[in-house]
Amino acid sequence: MQTDVEIAQSARLRPIGEIAEGLGLGPEDCEPYGHDKAKLSLDVLDRLADRPDGHLILCTAINPTAAGEGKTTTNVGLSMALNRLGHRAITTLREPSLGPVFGMKGGAAGGGFAQVVPMEDINLHFTGDFHAITSAHNLLAALLDNSVHQGNPLGINPKRVSWKRVLDMNDRSLRNIVVGLGKVGDGVVRESGFEITVASEIMAALCLATGVEDLKERLGRMVVAQTYDKQPVTAADLDAAGAMALLMKDAVKPNLVQTLENTPAIIHGGPFANIAHGNNSVLATRTALKLADYVVTEAGFGADLGAEKFFDIVVPAGGLTPSAVVLVATVRALKLNGGMDKKSLATEDLEALGRGVVNLEQHLENLQKFGVPVVVALNRFPTDTDAELDLVRERCAQLGAPMALSDVFARGGEGGEELARAVVELCGQESSFAPLYDAADDLLTKIGTVAREIYRADGVDLAPAARTQLADLEAQGHGHLPVCMAKTQYSFSDDPTLLGAPRGFRITVRELVVNAGAGFVVALTGDILRMPGLPRVPAAVGMDIAEDGTITGLS
Amino acid sequence: MQTDVEIAQSARLRPIGEIAEGLGLGPEDCEPYGHDKAKLSLDVLDRLADRPDGHLILCTAINPTAAGEGKTTTNVGLSMALNRLGHRAITTLREPSLGPVFGMKGGAAGGGFAQVVPMEDINLHFTGDFHAITSAHNLLAALLDNSVHQGNPLGINPKRVSWKRVLDMNDRSLRNIVVGLGKVGDGVVRESGFEITVASEIMAALCLATGVEDLKERLGRMVVAQTYDKQPVTAADLDAAGAMALLMKDAVKPNLVQTLENTPAIIHGGPFANIAHGNNSVLATRTALKLADYVVTEAGFGADLGAEKFFDIVVPAGGLTPSAVVLVATVRALKLNGGMDKKSLATEDLEALGRGVVNLEQHLENLQKFGVPVVVALNRFPTDTDAELDLVRERCAQLGAPMALSDVFARGGEGGEELARAVVELCGQESSFAPLYDAADDLLTKIGTVAREIYRADGVDLAPAARTQLADLEAQGHGHLPVCMAKTQYSFSDDPTLLGAPRGFRITVRELVVNAGAGFVVALTGDILRMPGLPRVPAAVGMDIAEDGTITGLS
Repeated sequence: MQTDVEIAQSARLRPIGEIAEGLGLGPEDCEPYGHDKAKLSLDVLDRLADRPDGHLILCTAINPTAAGEGKTTTNVGLSMALNRLGHRAITTLREPSLGPVFGMKGGAAGGGFAQVVPMEDINLHFTGDFHAITSAHNLLAALLDNSVHQGNPLGINPKRVSWKRVLDMNDRSLRNIVVGLGKVGDGVVRESGFEITVASEIMAALCLATGVEDLKERLGRMVVAQTYDKQPVTAADLDAAGAMALLMKDAVKPNLVQTLENTPAIIHGGPFANIAHGNNSVLATRTALKLADYVVTEAGFGADLGAEKFFDIVVPAGGLTPSAVVLVATVRALKLNGGMDKKSLATEDLEALGRGVVNLEQHLENLQKFGVPVVVALNRFPTDTDAELDLVRERCAQLGAPMALSDVFARGGEGGEELARAVVELCGQESSFAPLYDAADDLLTKIGTVAREIYRADGVDLAPAARTQLADLEAQGHGHLPVCMAKTQYSFSDDPTLLGAPRGFRITVRELVVNAGAGFVVALTGDILRMPGLPRVPAAVGMDIAEDGTITGLS
Repeated sequence: MQTDVEIAQSARLRPIGEIAEGLGLGPEDCEPYGHDKAKLSLDVLDRLADRPDGHLILCTAINPTAAGEGKTTTNVGLSMALNRLGHRAITTLREPSLGPVFGMKGGAAGGGFAQVVPMEDINLHFTGDFHAITSAHNLLAALLDNSVHQGNPLGINPKRVSWKRVLDMNDRSLRNIVVGLGKVGDGVVRESGFEITVASEIMAALCLATGVEDLKERLGRMVVAQTYDKQPVTAADLDAAGAMALLMKDAVKPNLVQTLENTPAIIHGGPFANIAHGNNSVLATRTALKLADYVVTEAGFGADLGAEKFFDIVVPAGGLTPSAVVLVATVRALKLNGGMDKKSLATEDLEALGRGVVNLEQHLENLQKFGVPVVVALNRFPTDTDAELDLVRERCAQLGAPMALSDVFARGGEGGEELARAVVELCGQESSFAPLYDAADDLLTKIGTVAREIYRADGVDLAPAARTQLADLEAQGHGHLPVCMAKTQYSFSDDPTLLGAPRGFRITVRELVVNAGAGFVVALTGDILRMPGLPRVPAAVGMDIAEDGTITGLS
């Protein structure tokens, strides 16, 4: 069987200018980055402001398992299938992070015959957006430490610096460090650390910004430290926002590439789906909606995190109107949710599937609460039996949702036509979208609503620190912000071992942190790793490039 | 007066494809990065292998002073002037580093009417080369620490890890850090630090590599640590070279841009001129030599560092043949060398000039030792008097060298025609280039030759540590490598306060370090700062970008 990178490297790409032309865009609208990538001008949005938006389809999934559910692959395949059926469709995706590419997870450009290309560039530096974020983030950190070093005119308390540094690398040794050691000219000693670039608040702000000015304001609002009398210090206080925005002058522009079937794909931004909102940039989605009849965007992790945040954070920030939801599941992952051993997944087991399908059902019910029609995309594996597929189809029907088989990994767009037809039908239906909570609700009410309605928790407990932080945040006027739940992706609960659809649990919020630039309050329900580590045998050790450009080891 | 960025932003750029076309290159030879930048394929070199090389002109300078000498400006202006005279000429330059751009020094794209454009992109992320180096460098660091953390199969002694991490940022707080703090899963505690990206050995290796395979071999040879029994551990031992080369698959390609007068410029790489060799990539220079009759390249700092390393390290590694040298000086800088106060430089002072011109004379004599004809380019300032110019011209004539006035900052290429004519004449003369020392000489002989012939030191002293290192390096078979002197740029001696042409001093080598991947042995004569800090008021705080893209504060 061909590997992903082999399929991708043997693909026939069309010049990116032709892809842009197919969208009605001219050379003034896009700047090429090599022959296969381009940045789209933000002027496109202004120019097409009066054009009606296409249909926005959210692609989300059941809770991720070790079996993999193929969400990105389905997203890409669906957009190809929609184009095969004669519609103008664009897939919008997050950019992969270098850290996981060289670590364990591999790339994030889809798989098999449903990939975005050039996958090797997309999985490496792409157009440099993440490097720009890294630079802007670390410039702010350097300016902060420099201010303390140069007489500390703002009165920053070095023990209350919350702004760390970032690298797009999996490097556990940098999680906890001491900086400023050495001689008197070498800065001020304090504890700090590095996080991975996708965890930067700048990433989240970029993805929620509606333009350069808005981004600059968000950058300026970011809280980086407290003074000795506990007043917040922002990037604006350090005169940093202008230079940071300058560093991001190109990063703010969405990137145009193509699928293996030469249909358009816009890939831009990539915030974490736990400590941030896990969706590509609003600018990318809004641009795509002006250029296509159907736009398929993707939310990170399962629907309990990704879809909820998409509807409660991204949609209001971006002024978006979702038309339909695709909920991706696999028989294998549902059997894992039903307690089956990972090694036996190739065997038919209707009992395990029956136990595990409750995970799908809860996600389905949850999504229906937002008033948007849902289709379940069953990402087919060769070992799935007809009886297993029937079981899932029946359970979906009981909840009033259609199920469509998807086989895009093996067959490309052709394998997604059933799903595409279902999506087109849903988009013709009445949609009555509403977010789960009201922006005017206080923070605890918002957290409680998500915990009760989505997670099905019996209630929310606040750790003592979180209780104080809650009062502070409300007092500081941050109560109107949406909440961004940072929770394990493996369970509806905050315990990663509780698969399926757990009941009889409570959610514990340990810490509340305002991201004033991104525009949300993060509610941490556990230790979320903001800097991954490398595994025993990192993916990097199998990678190579030959003199003729042939690449091995990327997936 | 217009600022540099104002002049640059009002320039009329030609599409980069047209610039490439003017060099006889087609779309298959160059990948666009936006409308004004392109990466040149390495295939160009293969395809044009049989074409004779153009003339290679090295642009170097007297020792830098606070007055600035305008070397890059002269380099760019000279190439524009050569084009005005009807020659095909290319300027090749180093890429600026983000750290100094946001710190004190500002950008490095020339100045006034002799700039390369788009200067704002060149001074920011450009085509991402430095970010690729940062990623490759830090991937190697992460793989190393991960190997120690995961059972340490190579037996690496954490106290003997020499490979640090890098960032393209001026950040003194990262010079000396402790990594690996925290819990058992957070790595191994040890002292370490960050250096600026341009100080990475990968930067030097990139700039001396002749292709992807050569680069990969250089990466693999890099020594990163020692085992408990003091055996060297290389990047190849960590299986890192393939992934690192993959990260640099585009960074290895030279970048094509243009000057303000729409003549071609190739900008690629940017190693330090003290701990490394301070010249743009060999691949850029070799490509330019196939495409033009005259190629003007630049060496970092004064000729004692930059030119010596160009002739003794770069020329042999790249298989190059230099035709002529341009030695840049200013009356102001020579008066500073003569002990004049910086505030009075606008006043005529023939005595101070007479005392300071010895700096120029020594550089001139030194350059003549390499057997290449030299012209002195006097970078003119409005306050220079005729008597001052005559004095310099006369002293050059006594040493048999022509002097040409250059006024390219104010007048662009037109202001460099006198210099261009002189250069063309020199290139018609006999050149009998030879490096200063023989590769077969032992390391101490090489160091002694440079110290005696270039610095005019009475001798070389080795600190005890360096003595041991010297023996080790010779024993390990590194004796055949050229030496890379790491010395202050402000003086011929290792004491930055000794201006002019000091005599009666000795050079002390404190440390010898092999850069097996770059292919030289660094001889450190003092504390060379590998991670700069920000000044009290960093350049960053004055920078901004407006919604319409107007940039302020870049210089």
